[in-house]
Amino acid sequence: MSVEILNEDSLAESSILADQNPLPSTIDARLRAQLEFVVEVDRLKTILRQSPLAAVDRRENDAEHSWHLALMVVLLAEHSDEPIDVGHTVKLVLVHDLVEIYAGDTPLYSDATDQQEREEAAADRLFGLLPDDQAVALRALWDEFEARSTPEARFAKAMDRLQPLLLNWMARGGTWKSPGVTADVVRARKAVIGEASSSLWAAGQELIDEGERRGWSAPGR
Amino acid sequence: MSVEILNEDSLAESSILADQNPLPSTIDARLRAQLEFVVEVDRLKTILRQSPLAAVDRRENDAEHSWHLALMVVLLAEHSDEPIDVGHTVKLVLVHDLVEIYAGDTPLYSDATDQQEREEAAADRLFGLLPDDQAVALRALWDEFEARSTPEARFAKAMDRLQPLLLNWMARGGTWKSPGVTADVVRARKAVIGEASSSLWAAGQELIDEGERRGWSAPGR
Repeated sequence: MSVEILNEDSLAESSILADQNPLPSTIDARLRAQLEFVVEVDRLKTILRQSPLAAVDRRENDAEHSWHLALMVVLLAEHSDEPIDVGHTVKLVLVHDLVEIYAGDTPLYSDATDQQEREEAAADRLFGLLPDDQAVALRALWDEFEARSTPEARFAKAMDRLQPLLLNWMARGGTWKSPGVTADVVRARKAVIGEASSSLWAAGQELIDEGERRGWSAPGR
Repeated sequence: MSVEILNEDSLAESSILADQNPLPSTIDARLRAQLEFVVEVDRLKTILRQSPLAAVDRRENDAEHSWHLALMVVLLAEHSDEPIDVGHTVKLVLVHDLVEIYAGDTPLYSDATDQQEREEAAADRLFGLLPDDQAVALRALWDEFEARSTPEARFAKAMDRLQPLLLNWMARGGTWKSPGVTADVVRARKAVIGEASSSLWAAGQELIDEGERRGWSAPGR
């Protein structure tokens, strides 16, 4: 793992939650690093997404979202057009948003151009808390997800796009009502579902089409 | 799957979230049932646990907790005393709290006696929303977790006990400060960690012992 060169400012920034109440030093160093990481990722529960929950009137956070995707992988794997390893796909979605702990959530319908740079720096910092072998392993999972280079990564990404589509449906619009978003913009951003599953993309298109008909998104074009 | 006999009252109760905004009937029936289940389990994000988060001052919900356990399985599997299938263990923790959607959370340090009965009824109702084969599969995962009958289930249960222990540590007490709870009560409830991992249970005991020394739990006995 490359070690970030930290100046005094970034050193202050780089304090981790476990520094506030250090774990007993009697715990073996490797396990202590793992447990410090487990504590640090508690922050994922504080990163808010744009999507409204279906069950209650508030926005979703990244930890809830990641759990939802993981369960969806288990339930919907049969719809993958290519065979996938379910356990590996679940790992991809458990890890896919971790970098947002330091980089923040970038809404799907945003024009942010520095997202990749911010997320790469966040990945170095966060995964660097782990023992080297696990830092490499988690980084590889994140890279695989981002690159959609395997059937598992394509299915994981499809879940990441399908889940908020269901939440927007339940909210009768949700983020479809964001400024500048039309039904065609939604179709374009959601089309990656079709890279993984023709049946799920067909269902997704039903939701988008019917949402447009009902006026929950601005008409196409 | 056994079908619950519903009277008029429980029929009203048994409406699902997707009834509020039915998914298009043009979606294939099996997939529609799966997607309705995906929407329904959004409720897990509203079930609050006793544990305080480490990252921010509020209680944790079941969806966040389930995600945290799943990631812990991936990171800590090497500490299992017996070989485990990581993917299967992750499935167990993703599903383990779903019944609380209808049965509610039962705090670890509670005397509730009807927990099993409530949760069995909730399992029938919730898993019954799925196509039969998946209802049986999810029910089997939940039964396996509850029975701790496999190395995977023992490890999953260990995560379920270790994670709030870490959160209580970070809160300098948390639910250890509940009425009637002493360090020995904590030790007794957490000892199942030792059924899965001697190294994780050793670390857990360090946290409990040191917490007791610092006065974050009432002294033993």
